[in-house]
Amino acid sequence: MPDSPSELAERLRLKPGKRVRLDEVDPDDTLDLPRKEQALRALEKNVQHIAALQERLFAEHRRALLVVFQALDAGGKDGTTRAVFSGVNPQGCRVTSFKAPTAEELAHDFLWRIHRAVPGRGEIGIFNRSHYEDVLVVRVDGLVPKKVWSRRYEQINRFERQLVDTGTEIVKIFLHISRDEQAERLRDRIATPEKRWKFSPDDLRKRAQWGDYMKAYEDALRRCGTEQAPWYLVPANRNWVRNLAVSAIVRSKLEEMDPQVPEPKWDPSVIVIE
Amino acid sequence: MPDSPSELAERLRLKPGKRVRLDEVDPDDTLDLPRKEQALRALEKNVQHIAALQERLFAEHRRALLVVFQALDAGGKDGTTRAVFSGVNPQGCRVTSFKAPTAEELAHDFLWRIHRAVPGRGEIGIFNRSHYEDVLVVRVDGLVPKKVWSRRYEQINRFERQLVDTGTEIVKIFLHISRDEQAERLRDRIATPEKRWKFSPDDLRKRAQWGDYMKAYEDALRRCGTEQAPWYLVPANRNWVRNLAVSAIVRSKLEEMDPQVPEPKWDPSVIVIE
Repeated sequence: MPDSPSELAERLRLKPGKRVRLDEVDPDDTLDLPRKEQALRALEKNVQHIAALQERLFAEHRRALLVVFQALDAGGKDGTTRAVFSGVNPQGCRVTSFKAPTAEELAHDFLWRIHRAVPGRGEIGIFNRSHYEDVLVVRVDGLVPKKVWSRRYEQINRFERQLVDTGTEIVKIFLHISRDEQAERLRDRIATPEKRWKFSPDDLRKRAQWGDYMKAYEDALRRCGTEQAPWYLVPANRNWVRNLAVSAIVRSKLEEMDPQVPEPKWDPSVIVIE
Repeated sequence: MPDSPSELAERLRLKPGKRVRLDEVDPDDTLDLPRKEQALRALEKNVQHIAALQERLFAEHRRALLVVFQALDAGGKDGTTRAVFSGVNPQGCRVTSFKAPTAEELAHDFLWRIHRAVPGRGEIGIFNRSHYEDVLVVRVDGLVPKKVWSRRYEQINRFERQLVDTGTEIVKIFLHISRDEQAERLRDRIATPEKRWKFSPDDLRKRAQWGDYMKAYEDALRRCGTEQAPWYLVPANRNWVRNLAVSAIVRSKLEEMDPQVPEPKWDPSVIVIE
């Protein structure tokens, strides 16, 4: 392996404010990883480390980690969650999948439902889609005027800043697949009876907006890539590269947080169990 | 292995309305399981089945499974959750740990916070403690008058009946440890720095009420053991017996539910991906 988890994560981390051209980033990139078999072993090791670090985070009960997944349809959000977080004690791990907002959610500001879902102290929260949809699908489909969505980048940065300031670390991960890879995956979903439930004819409408989505993602990555809540751009055409990369990002973030089992508030020497 | 998962589950299932004398149930029982090594392999197999069944439950998106864990302190609720549900995709698995109620929760009926936390369609919900605390600690510590807690058994049965009627299957599991085993585990928590955060001096106060808790549990098991939401009594002095037993209960319940990936609402033959 050429990279330690933290080196691999660092390579994928976008520089704050830097413009990204997604059509110049290769979704087939294998990141100089040597071979699939080795990558799978490294993934397994990362998952074990994540599980152990999460136990300490839970015991510490002082900070939280929020992992945001964004991707186009069939980009691998579900598969990555399963590969990286199965194996972690679900007691300290909470996944929230954001769908089209309900009437109650629409009656509030766009960050209301997001704030309600952030992880509590000691937890890892995983967002399958997120508040970024409010500058992605909402922008592409024109669900609110430009005047409204264009102010949201700044609002998101303030919101995330507030979370980080109060103990919730954030990593944001964009799973980058190519248009051809999406076609292949959608075709596979349609051809495979057990996968058909994952497909919706609306996916085709969004696929036709590919260029608009790339532009919207480029803006979100640039305008909301911050020091405190960076974006990571993960080449995701190959599942094994994607899973290893995400596990490295999460592991190295938890190692950087270095959670500590707290000292007891009582004196162990005076406790007698009868 | 003498028992299939469903036979093992059936042995542990309490007959509705039948009185249980907990001091006559051996927490050291190994349930005729042959050896620890074999039990660990059987656990692993059950976990794989649970993970696969949960994917189907998630795809079906029609029903839910609620698993309630109750036990005395150090009874193994956390360890069982980790052993049986790590390995399941956290996307479809939601753990709720009920602590002392907040002011807002106390301003509502005792089932209000419980109802809010039940799993949604397609999910497995795991309760680490539950509404049963409202007839356990609340009864033992006299937090409400007998007139109030004694009506709760019937209220709980109605509530659970309603959940089952509307698509949420329920299994309730009491992890049964002996008083000596609890002493050993509490001593271990105090002696081991990384485990100290799990101990609270209040655990000793509750330990001194052992007999009252046994009586309260016996009543909860008898009065709320119903056909639709049965209790399972799991001997829990040995972790490997406990984990295998719980995995068998959950697996056989999911197999009985037999979730089906739904048919698409669109016609696969007319979809073309370009």
